[in-house]
Amino acid sequence: MGEYTHFDADGRPTLVDVGDKSVTKRTALAEGWLYLPEEIFHTVSQGAVKKGDPLRIAELGGIMGAKRTPELIPLCHNIRLDNVKVRCDLDGEKKAVKITCEASANEVTGVEMEALTGVSAAALTFYDMCKGIDKGMVIKDIRLLSKTGGKSGEWVAEKGYGK
Amino acid sequence: MGEYTHFDADGRPTLVDVGDKSVTKRTALAEGWLYLPEEIFHTVSQGAVKKGDPLRIAELGGIMGAKRTPELIPLCHNIRLDNVKVRCDLDGEKKAVKITCEASANEVTGVEMEALTGVSAAALTFYDMCKGIDKGMVIKDIRLLSKTGGKSGEWVAEKGYGK
Amino acid sequence: MGEYTHFDADGRPTLVDVGDKSVTKRTALAEGWLYLPEEIFHTVSQGAVKKGDPLRIAELGGIMGAKRTPELIPLCHNIRLDNVKVRCDLDGEKKAVKITCEASANEVTGVEMEALTGVSAAALTFYDMCKGIDKGMVIKDIRLLSKTGGKSGEWVAEKGYGK
Amino acid sequence: MGEYTHFDADGRPTLVDVGDKSVTKRTALAEGWLYLPEEIFHTVSQGAVKKGDPLRIAELGGIMGAKRTPELIPLCHNIRLDNVKVRCDLDGEKKAVKITCEASANEVTGVEMEALTGVSAAALTFYDMCKGIDKGMVIKDIRLLSKTGGKSGEWVAEKGYGK
Amino acid sequence: MGEYTHFDADGRPTLVDVGDKSVTKRTALAEGWLYLPEEIFHTVSQGAVKKGDPLRIAELGGIMGAKRTPELIPLCHNIRLDNVKVRCDLDGEKKAVKITCEASANEVTGVEMEALTGVSAAALTFYDMCKGIDKGMVIKDIRLLSKTGGKSGEWVAEKGYGK
Amino acid sequence: MGEYTHFDADGRPTLVDVGDKSVTKRTALAEGWLYLPEEIFHTVSQGAVKKGDPLRIAELGGIMGAKRTPELIPLCHNIRLDNVKVRCDLDGEKKAVKITCEASANEVTGVEMEALTGVSAAALTFYDMCKGIDKGMVIKDIRLLSKTGGKSGEWVAEKGYGK
Repeated sequence: MGEYTHFDADGRPTLVDVGDKSVTKRTALAEGWLYLPEEIFHTVSQGAVKKGDPLRIAELGGIMGAKRTPELIPLCHNIRLDNVKVRCDLDGEKKAVKITCEASANEVTGVEMEALTGVSAAALTFYDMCKGIDKGMVIKDIRLLSKTGGKSGEWVAEKGYGK
Repeated sequence: MGEYTHFDADGRPTLVDVGDKSVTKRTALAEGWLYLPEEIFHTVSQGAVKKGDPLRIAELGGIMGAKRTPELIPLCHNIRLDNVKVRCDLDGEKKAVKITCEASANEVTGVEMEALTGVSAAALTFYDMCKGIDKGMVIKDIRLLSKTGGKSGEWVAEKGYGK
Repeated sequence: MGEYTHFDADGRPTLVDVGDKSVTKRTALAEGWLYLPEEIFHTVSQGAVKKGDPLRIAELGGIMGAKRTPELIPLCHNIRLDNVKVRCDLDGEKKAVKITCEASANEVTGVEMEALTGVSAAALTFYDMCKGIDKGMVIKDIRLLSKTGGKSGEWVAEKGYGK
Repeated sequence: MGEYTHFDADGRPTLVDVGDKSVTKRTALAEGWLYLPEEIFHTVSQGAVKKGDPLRIAELGGIMGAKRTPELIPLCHNIRLDNVKVRCDLDGEKKAVKITCEASANEVTGVEMEALTGVSAAALTFYDMCKGIDKGMVIKDIRLLSKTGGKSGEWVAEKGYGK
Repeated sequence: MGEYTHFDADGRPTLVDVGDKSVTKRTALAEGWLYLPEEIFHTVSQGAVKKGDPLRIAELGGIMGAKRTPELIPLCHNIRLDNVKVRCDLDGEKKAVKITCEASANEVTGVEMEALTGVSAAALTFYDMCKGIDKGMVIKDIRLLSKTGGKSGEWVAEKGYGK
Repeated sequence: MGEYTHFDADGRPTLVDVGDKSVTKRTALAEGWLYLPEEIFHTVSQGAVKKGDPLRIAELGGIMGAKRTPELIPLCHNIRLDNVKVRCDLDGEKKAVKITCEASANEVTGVEMEALTGVSAAALTFYDMCKGIDKGMVIKDIRLLSKTGGKSGEWVAEKGYGK
């Protein structure tokens, strides 16, 4: 059964003590979407080659955001990430940017927050670059798809989850 | 007509030059939702008083995140925020945390990114604190509701927007 | 016999080379006090439940401060903390907030600075939240109570120490 | 009469809205002490010239700490400091380092936290550099001595204050 | 006649007090070169389109580095930059990346350090991305080309300067 | 044969996955020069004792810069440095500051970027402190001299390299 890991018995906020946890390979994969108004979708799909590519910069923003997770999230541990991979792709059907972030580490604690933060930072970076065209972008469905490693082992989002 | 403000004519990433823009009062209001699995919703609505309150810590995480916006978003200016207000409230019908962030500044550039980053950071902070119970939370519909100030003046999201 | 660990033979500031030190479990416990003018003491002891609780936010500020120690202290190493626990309690007799910070890590270097920084950051965070009532708060007696681990092993403050 | 400036009517943590406050010249002066065990006091007073000077590095640590105040204190505004001056002097009678920090800004909000953080960071930096000799140093009596500017105007610590 | 602006009369490190300086438009332009071994030069000039472009990422690294100047340089003020423009171009004759950074601000202090830091960060970012091919890159001739604004007004590097 | 380590097959920027690399002792030594106009060279060589010493502060700035490498360089991993040693010495013949930075870590990835960033930050810190005298300083020839450890093992700059 789950538990609040970030409050002690008196209700104080606390880091979780990871001193007795084992170093294992941890991975996490998160996903999210940024829905684009027509004009932005059109401009990005056409204009990227000629005018610079917000998808690539959003990926970089996502990687850098994932690296900063412990500064952004008050009760996250400073860990050493082995890998962060952020992908931003246009989805022509949804008129949206599909964002995924895969993080991994050989560490005593999981990298779920790093993966979720990477997706969020990529979405915000893209929004920032295109808000001069239209502010009507919407970030949707940021969620964890799967994780591995640690005592709780593998976790996979339920099918249809988040809908 | 809108434009890519963060690329120059050669496609290089660039800060927008705000040197000739006027200092005016700028505000922005953003909103987002964090959908909670049943057990988390139940625990937070019951247990908050006794065991510490993730809603209050998420609000604090949101404020601090908004302050860090220029570090997180590669092409955002460092500005001085006058105010950041983050609210996290349980919505019993949606089984979700409703998050709003209102930012304001007397500045040469807008505070939309600060408001959106505040919402994102609050959602991530809450997720982090409750992920020991269930990882099935989903961040949804982070979007700008309105902004005022600057050359482009007032902007309000269209009704039904983001659905 | 003790030595200046942060200057080399020529008087240059330097990180201490920890490359040959062993990874062992390191802990440190530090303590400090924030003396409160009557009105603040009264308001905090009464009003916390209804109006938000500066003690909890100071604890959070302390944890986050401890995590930032290597950024704040020029010659501290970046380490990975396993745990940080900050407690802020009102002491009715002293009319003060008693602050403790316990830090631990499996690392090549000690966590004394993290514990002391956690106490300092908690004290400053509390001061900030209550300075609108009265600026006459005083931070007193921040000191290390004990540490364990590493080559120098256990250290306990002398009785009566710091008085 | 004073008030909690960092909680709203519902008890939520909040930045204080400084949007309607006037830009005025703000100054603050804070003070603190770091009591030194005999061996450290002796070594610093003798050895500084030959082996590098922890007083100067502590001053630098204090200045840099003051600049980071809004990152360290959750509800502090990002402001632009005009000046930070940190002095660390040995006091032969008290066997202590006397630390003062003077901060100033033309801003909408005061610089008391910057002055207090500067003193704290200088004390911690000095502690770090000398802890290899003896961990029995104690930080004492960090307090605000005076401030000027803003709506509340001048404030001077009461005589005998903090004792 | 010039002077050490960052030491006071006692030799203490200090921020320069900018409280009485006027807000004027400040600009600075800096330049530097990264000399490339043949294989890197060849790969970047050929391969950029297909495999991602280190020049664009170096420009982004330069912009972000310029924004972080006050964190990196101990005695720099936190200022609000209006604009940062970094250009990285291949110079076929020198087999080098030519890097320029132009910074501007309406501020009480100059932006020379921001321009120089932007060039340095761009060079380091490029180095990092290509060091897997050959570590024999060399950063050369980072210097200020010109600045305007402030009491000292316009400054232009002498012809032949830095050779 | 070398390769672009920071782009994936699709040209996306990426951290290098270091999850399968071995922890070994890594060292790197970098060097650079800051050429000084006559007046600065004269003042620093004479005045240092009396008025504070920019060489020592530049060394400190270099150490702190090296610690911040992963924040400054977008695609660098957060690692734990064991040691950073920065030396700034006047070279009377060249009228320049010779800067070296030696970094080491027991890590899965190398410390070349940390050594190069330490040199760059020291040069910029020195420049900042002396720019009030003359802005005509030039940073020259920042390069890696040698590295050890990791799969690629030892690397030494070719003789005459960088000229």
